[in-house]
Amino acid sequence: MTYKGKVVLAYSGGLDTCVAVKWLMDQGYDVVTMTADVGQVVDLEAVKDKALKTGAVNAYVMDLREEFVSDFVWPALKANAQYQGTYPLNSALSRPLIAKYLVWVAQMEGAVAVAHGCTGKGQDQVRFEVCVGALDPKLQVLAPVRDWHFSRETEIEYAKEHGIPVPVTAKSPYSIDENMWGRAIECGVLEDPWNEPPSDCFALTADPWDAPDAPLYMEIGFEKGLPVSLDGAVMEGPALIAKLNEIAGACGVGRIDMIEDRLVGFKSREVYECPAAVVLMGAHKALEKLTLAKEVHAAKADMENKYGELAYVGYWYSPLKEAYDAFFDKAQEVVSGVARVRLYKGQAVVVGLKSENSLYQDDLATYTDADTFDHGSAKGFINVWGLAVKTWRQVHPAEALTVPDLKAVGQ
Amino acid sequence: MTYKGKVVLAYSGGLDTCVAVKWLMDQGYDVVTMTADVGQVVDLEAVKDKALKTGAVNAYVMDLREEFVSDFVWPALKANAQYQGTYPLNSALSRPLIAKYLVWVAQMEGAVAVAHGCTGKGQDQVRFEVCVGALDPKLQVLAPVRDWHFSRETEIEYAKEHGIPVPVTAKSPYSIDENMWGRAIECGVLEDPWNEPPSDCFALTADPWDAPDAPLYMEIGFEKGLPVSLDGAVMEGPALIAKLNEIAGACGVGRIDMIEDRLVGFKSREVYECPAAVVLMGAHKALEKLTLAKEVHAAKADMENKYGELAYVGYWYSPLKEAYDAFFDKAQEVVSGVARVRLYKGQAVVVGLKSENSLYQDDLATYTDADTFDHGSAKGFINVWGLAVKTWRQVHPAEALTVPDLKAVGQ
Amino acid sequence: MTYKGKVVLAYSGGLDTCVAVKWLMDQGYDVVTMTADVGQVVDLEAVKDKALKTGAVNAYVMDLREEFVSDFVWPALKANAQYQGTYPLNSALSRPLIAKYLVWVAQMEGAVAVAHGCTGKGQDQVRFEVCVGALDPKLQVLAPVRDWHFSRETEIEYAKEHGIPVPVTAKSPYSIDENMWGRAIECGVLEDPWNEPPSDCFALTADPWDAPDAPLYMEIGFEKGLPVSLDGAVMEGPALIAKLNEIAGACGVGRIDMIEDRLVGFKSREVYECPAAVVLMGAHKALEKLTLAKEVHAAKADMENKYGELAYVGYWYSPLKEAYDAFFDKAQEVVSGVARVRLYKGQAVVVGLKSENSLYQDDLATYTDADTFDHGSAKGFINVWGLAVKTWRQVHPAEALTVPDLKAVGQ
Amino acid sequence: MTYKGKVVLAYSGGLDTCVAVKWLMDQGYDVVTMTADVGQVVDLEAVKDKALKTGAVNAYVMDLREEFVSDFVWPALKANAQYQGTYPLNSALSRPLIAKYLVWVAQMEGAVAVAHGCTGKGQDQVRFEVCVGALDPKLQVLAPVRDWHFSRETEIEYAKEHGIPVPVTAKSPYSIDENMWGRAIECGVLEDPWNEPPSDCFALTADPWDAPDAPLYMEIGFEKGLPVSLDGAVMEGPALIAKLNEIAGACGVGRIDMIEDRLVGFKSREVYECPAAVVLMGAHKALEKLTLAKEVHAAKADMENKYGELAYVGYWYSPLKEAYDAFFDKAQEVVSGVARVRLYKGQAVVVGLKSENSLYQDDLATYTDADTFDHGSAKGFINVWGLAVKTWRQVHPAEALTVPDLKAVGQ
Repeated sequence: MTYKGKVVLAYSGGLDTCVAVKWLMDQGYDVVTMTADVGQVVDLEAVKDKALKTGAVNAYVMDLREEFVSDFVWPALKANAQYQGTYPLNSALSRPLIAKYLVWVAQMEGAVAVAHGCTGKGQDQVRFEVCVGALDPKLQVLAPVRDWHFSRETEIEYAKEHGIPVPVTAKSPYSIDENMWGRAIECGVLEDPWNEPPSDCFALTADPWDAPDAPLYMEIGFEKGLPVSLDGAVMEGPALIAKLNEIAGACGVGRIDMIEDRLVGFKSREVYECPAAVVLMGAHKALEKLTLAKEVHAAKADMENKYGELAYVGYWYSPLKEAYDAFFDKAQEVVSGVARVRLYKGQAVVVGLKSENSLYQDDLATYTDADTFDHGSAKGFINVWGLAVKTWRQVHPAEALTVPDLKAVGQ
Repeated sequence: MTYKGKVVLAYSGGLDTCVAVKWLMDQGYDVVTMTADVGQVVDLEAVKDKALKTGAVNAYVMDLREEFVSDFVWPALKANAQYQGTYPLNSALSRPLIAKYLVWVAQMEGAVAVAHGCTGKGQDQVRFEVCVGALDPKLQVLAPVRDWHFSRETEIEYAKEHGIPVPVTAKSPYSIDENMWGRAIECGVLEDPWNEPPSDCFALTADPWDAPDAPLYMEIGFEKGLPVSLDGAVMEGPALIAKLNEIAGACGVGRIDMIEDRLVGFKSREVYECPAAVVLMGAHKALEKLTLAKEVHAAKADMENKYGELAYVGYWYSPLKEAYDAFFDKAQEVVSGVARVRLYKGQAVVVGLKSENSLYQDDLATYTDADTFDHGSAKGFINVWGLAVKTWRQVHPAEALTVPDLKAVGQ
Repeated sequence: MTYKGKVVLAYSGGLDTCVAVKWLMDQGYDVVTMTADVGQVVDLEAVKDKALKTGAVNAYVMDLREEFVSDFVWPALKANAQYQGTYPLNSALSRPLIAKYLVWVAQMEGAVAVAHGCTGKGQDQVRFEVCVGALDPKLQVLAPVRDWHFSRETEIEYAKEHGIPVPVTAKSPYSIDENMWGRAIECGVLEDPWNEPPSDCFALTADPWDAPDAPLYMEIGFEKGLPVSLDGAVMEGPALIAKLNEIAGACGVGRIDMIEDRLVGFKSREVYECPAAVVLMGAHKALEKLTLAKEVHAAKADMENKYGELAYVGYWYSPLKEAYDAFFDKAQEVVSGVARVRLYKGQAVVVGLKSENSLYQDDLATYTDADTFDHGSAKGFINVWGLAVKTWRQVHPAEALTVPDLKAVGQ
Repeated sequence: MTYKGKVVLAYSGGLDTCVAVKWLMDQGYDVVTMTADVGQVVDLEAVKDKALKTGAVNAYVMDLREEFVSDFVWPALKANAQYQGTYPLNSALSRPLIAKYLVWVAQMEGAVAVAHGCTGKGQDQVRFEVCVGALDPKLQVLAPVRDWHFSRETEIEYAKEHGIPVPVTAKSPYSIDENMWGRAIECGVLEDPWNEPPSDCFALTADPWDAPDAPLYMEIGFEKGLPVSLDGAVMEGPALIAKLNEIAGACGVGRIDMIEDRLVGFKSREVYECPAAVVLMGAHKALEKLTLAKEVHAAKADMENKYGELAYVGYWYSPLKEAYDAFFDKAQEVVSGVARVRLYKGQAVVVGLKSENSLYQDDLATYTDADTFDHGSAKGFINVWGLAVKTWRQVHPAEALTVPDLKAVGQ
């Protein structure tokens, strides 16, 4: 076996990536592991020990929560990025960040390749490989789990042979990915779209019927499209998200259940729980309706969908993403103010809004005597507004009006 | 005063339209009233009597609920039409229908004009006038309330002088419009966006905290994008909507609270309650995710926004609406199946989906041994998928990766 | 070698597909060839003979020109389909048609596979394979040229060994594909985008400077978005296109030169000559401006781009294509009339338009005394139209106006 | 008559604006005129004298060509802004600039209002009034020509009475507006869309058949989306545009003839000549195809249309314009290089492109042995790319293939 050089492996400490360490060693690589803390529940020191014991020549563990929020979650929030109008991209947003640090460690360590533990049918393989290719086109990307064609049994056998501890507890029926922006749940009974997601698949959110009996109110302060305070207290992004996950999760808020189009060409049933994302996205959208000009709001709607799409398909490090960010950053300059949110048994509802940049003008909107809107302009406006439709119908007369027989309409 | 001919007035029986009857008579018109039942609470016979007593030469009362659902609500549901992504267009959809019957009565009666009771700052004046202009470009449209410049006091005085009964009860603090597809609430304390909508502004929905303590499940059957059954029982549109309004309303489902951009150039705070619309739209969207091809789903998202916009601005009888309908009708041919919905204290959640047209394929989606997806294709796919981004970065190298100092990331 | 069954090969009679016949036989297939006449210059009988002599067990030659025009070219014309706003999709449109007949012959012949002669980097492999997969998901698709990894020399050697006649004339420096809707030219000196396409790469069009010295006028009649007559003479689609190719090509009209993004991730320099397409698209667009409502025109612009994209990437037999067609068919119902076109030394210019469905209204447009437009409405219209911008600026005042120093502006 | 204060009038020196000076004086205003040089043919000193002689209390004449190019034309060029895909917005772009200086002079002079000489049916009234309202919401805008309801005869009589010189030459049959970015021609025989625009309506462009008999080549250098050099010589914007107008105009390049949807609801026949705009837009678009990523190119296409629309309807000083500019500026950072353009008898064709930022990669695009594209990836790519269409057809089988009878296809 020839020595092939170093490879940097994205390492979670689970069975797949432990086996991958050995398997890559078998292929002739020295393995360096990289474990990123993006807010999942993880004991970084234990993971590091495990990696080294399994044979890694070096093991990086990195707390990337701050960068995750500032450079990945926040731009997505400005864009209200939800794939297919629904999925807040929690897992998708962490991949380009992890890819970045795989590349960085590879450059530090003089590695020839990086590796990930994805299978051949998910989205994450696409995201890792496209992002690594963007950041360092010369680095190879290995996908041991996609290549080794192990059955579950073979994998366990291989693990035992190589002294890798195999979890004795029953494997969870679900496949889970978690970070600060949410938790993704797949597999098991969820593979039948007719099945209601059972309580045991959720970890961050209470069942609504077990949530507190009284509504809970909070005020979220925004500056230029980003949340900066909770009930008046200024908070950093990671802390604010953590707090919101806790509070809103306890209120049963944040569950998402959808059929999702995978980039690789099939539909998948996905369940998410994203308490902070759901609350923040709702508050942000409401505040935008108060502070954005109508035409900006309309133009942005279309771009939001496309931004969600590009994050989903691994195009984070693309020029389109940068150009959209320029649009969003400019548009968000005015999205400052406070949203008052009511949390109650599964639902987060914005019930109050205020902003120094509010475009809501009492004197125009009111139906009281304070009204300053020029009603007289309306007539001319409507004449012009309707002129083209009228012309259309003069050229293409509507068919003679036919109506249900008079009796049918009560005459 | 010259006799000017007949005018057909959209007549609700409220103070404004009663005064309008007299005022139009003062201008030299014979007034024919037209009152449409689109599902609001209304005693048609009493309205007819009142119109005739007030001086109308003829009074039409018409039950338009069936046509409202089939020709206005259903196309909007196929399009998931929500103005600014939020407002289900309940009031907006009724205007072109009422305009149609104003025109029809005018043609029956040989009238020279139609009239509505809108002020000069709302949306409805636009919708009425543009729609009437489309259906019969030769008809004049009068807007007495916009023209008479009465203060509230003057109006009441005028009413008394002309023998029009003035309601003795205190005027509701809210301005209300209602039909089968929902109820719109404006004015009063709602004019301050910071105020939470008080319980007394709602009529169709329970406060969530007063709703039943147990989740309620229902199965809604769809055929080609439209609901056709409830819990297995086939139902006609109006009955199904009425039933859903009742059930979901009792569960506190259907409240919407938003800042909305009026066509006439200012923002307005609007509150809606639309139990049936919220449940049906949610179920319909979920079923679309199961049955529509990804690219149809994406293309439709953009058109949905534009369809919502055109309904909002009075362009119902426009060629764009017809062309969009052709697209939606074609796309909806496959949107058949059943959505299982859980209603609980303010929230309607789709928890199960099935369809003969499901594009969800077990054998592709599963992570079990039944998997038939060709994992080997993924590698080639990703190479091609990421090639352009890689090329971009070869021409425009990413800046050297800089990372927070190692300590900051936990090394 | 096991017998694998029959394969239907898309067969042009050129060296590649002749070698493919033998190569597929070597793999254990009986080969049936299918040659489609889509308007290229081809001697169908000679091709058939050659196929049979090379060893094909059966050889189909089919005149598909009529279907090509009616089912592929005309829908694309309604959509003004041009990939990246420029390429009229001439080659792209023929692929789904040929794929259809490959499938049809395969079903007739009981074949297990179809095959095409594309390499691994073009667009056409994608189109063939996706379209065949759509029409008969059970059929295998073989790509001998992509798989055999022959160099040019090896291929010629292989041909000689197998008794396949090798053309003695020098190979053209260009790679050509041709049909009724145009001719595509690649390779050779064109691979450097700085090189002007030389005269020798063109076959359908005269160099503009060699074209006639006098302008030539023609009148093209359209019905519902499609051309039906030339200078008043009713003509069938294929004949009309052929005539336009001849006339406009002689005038030097129809050359297109562009950098194009291939689906497979890189840019390519492509030269096309499409005299009929350029003339018809220009006339059609001009007539649309006369007959379509403004909002339809605007909505269609966006869909045109997406339709061009889906035809380019092989999604012809997709539900999105069908739904777009429904939109376009509806919208095109009014696009009837006559466009007068001036052809002169490379350029086709629409210089006159008339239509019974013209939305151009003299009395509204004129600046003469015949003007019936209500100028008074303009004031009210503008007040309302500008209100939101005014409000925006009241909330976000424009910076104090600064101007270049007075001298700079001539004071 | 009460003294109403100062008004600043946009003043061309033509009959309408001369009469407007007097008419505004009659209404009680002191009139200050403002004449902007945006590249039209104008003797500023003579205009100033005329204004003062007619009674203006002050007369500003300002050379705004530089600002017109840098702040109005260049952003539009980055956006390839063409209304309805065709009109380069030459007149439209000058209005917000003139509005700015009307406001500035008004603020300098302490005026209470500004005034323009537009009628009630054009676009320019909208642009002036919306832009003035955006820049200084407190300023009134007067529209004497819209208000005075003079017939041509009455206007001339009024002029004579007030000592305003009336042009003795026959009025041009056309209505003209001109600046550096182009010339707009309306009225007269052009009001019938069937009439070919006669030679006498053009001033900047030669008839193609009178243009030189030899092709003329030029090289235009771009930096970040903007032209900076001509045939290697660095040039400032205004000079470069002037030079291009001269050269391309002599070659007959730049004529545009279209039916255009006015914002005020009707269609109008418009003829433009914009030699520089046509050449630059074509070169810019070609260079974008070489340097922009595919997805940026596609996303931008849609925004280009919307940007053209907002400039057309007077929304230049809107937040949407600013946000789009941010997107375009970011995207244009790479649009640098050289376009070689061939001008010949009415047509400008890009025949060569080069750029340091070229994304065209020889080694990927070539069909020679230098090819580095991984053909093997194509198979996997296509499998994945076509999977969803295949699934669609498995669920919704294509109808059995029917073909024209065999004879019809030549069998």
